[in-house]
Amino acid sequence: MQKEGLKIVISGPSGAGKGTIVKELIKNETFRLSISATTRMPRQGEEEGVHYFFKTKKAFSKMIEEEQLLEYAMFCDNYYGTPKCFIEESVKNGKDVILEIEVQGAAQIKEVYPEAIFIFVIPPTLRDLENRLIGRNTETDEVIKKRLQRAKEELYLYKEYDYVIINDNIERAADYIEKIVCAEKLRSNKFKQHIEAILNYQGGF
Amino acid sequence: MQKEGLKIVISGPSGAGKGTIVKELIKNETFRLSISATTRMPRQGEEEGVHYFFKTKKAFSKMIEEEQLLEYAMFCDNYYGTPKCFIEESVKNGKDVILEIEVQGAAQIKEVYPEAIFIFVIPPTLRDLENRLIGRNTETDEVIKKRLQRAKEELYLYKEYDYVIINDNIERAADYIEKIVCAEKLRSNKFKQHIEAILNYQGGF
Repeated sequence: MQKEGLKIVISGPSGAGKGTIVKELIKNETFRLSISATTRMPRQGEEEGVHYFFKTKKAFSKMIEEEQLLEYAMFCDNYYGTPKCFIEESVKNGKDVILEIEVQGAAQIKEVYPEAIFIFVIPPTLRDLENRLIGRNTETDEVIKKRLQRAKEELYLYKEYDYVIINDNIERAADYIEKIVCAEKLRSNKFKQHIEAILNYQGGF
Repeated sequence: MQKEGLKIVISGPSGAGKGTIVKELIKNETFRLSISATTRMPRQGEEEGVHYFFKTKKAFSKMIEEEQLLEYAMFCDNYYGTPKCFIEESVKNGKDVILEIEVQGAAQIKEVYPEAIFIFVIPPTLRDLENRLIGRNTETDEVIKKRLQRAKEELYLYKEYDYVIINDNIERAADYIEKIVCAEKLRSNKFKQHIEAILNYQGGF
């Protein structure tokens, strides 16, 4: 009997390093990264079903209409969204699906997938966050200041999540997430079938 | 800042192999086994505060009166009980304290320590349980039959626990429990102080 995989939402303030942790995690083949659908054209080297599901605007609109998307947004005149179907099939095949989501999107996902595991990635200190935002070197002081303010506000949302990971070491952070996933699979509500199978056994006595 | 340890209740039907798993677990020094108090005389090689806390009947009665015990029972004209004080001090010192408890006792502990982690150990199959009970070779068929019936009834209680461990391999079972403990320490409600410390930082901007 194939056990279902888990849906794992990884979120946290921008600059906390979610993306790096996710890249480390998916080196482990039991994990599968959720693939987004988009209406933008494929860039050099991007493959259908690997980097994105590439859709026409018409096909994307149909997906919206038929509620096939977990969430979607318009960015630079193109749609981006998360198809439910890919997530649900992967989970049925025993894969643990990772959804890397901005803090604002996580609440929507909780409504559709209340059984998902919600993990909040935070920087070790606010100074680390500041350094990372400065390190990107693409923004003015004013923008960095605003981002830092927003990150502070987002930090308060940790209570909405099941687990918190301090991102001070990428390998350790990924290892912690693997342990969380292992523990979540040992939750007692996952053992109904197993216990019933044991109880159906007719002993030698 | 010393982080508090966890209280870990390990229970399950008799014959499921709780004791063997606990012995494996406490090889890891972060774990500490809860020590019982008793009014019986020390046996050869038994040390005060290692195997038991040895008490006079008068001292034990005082512990009962002053509600110093998590639970207690009379067995062969001697008292046995679990002192709360040892558990609470160990936890304060960052140790994860293991309480190995019969199924009937676990509910009482949940009332006193609702924050404890409740782990239910089950045999892979009912036949394994049967074999273990027969293997002890100390009971009549009638007694084994009764025990098996009781074990079946106890199995239904898995829902009252947070996690279930199938005891098909001792090292793996102990490893799973270590992962559960690690994951439980990453629960978001354990990060209040950490998040507040981050937010109190005054950035360079």
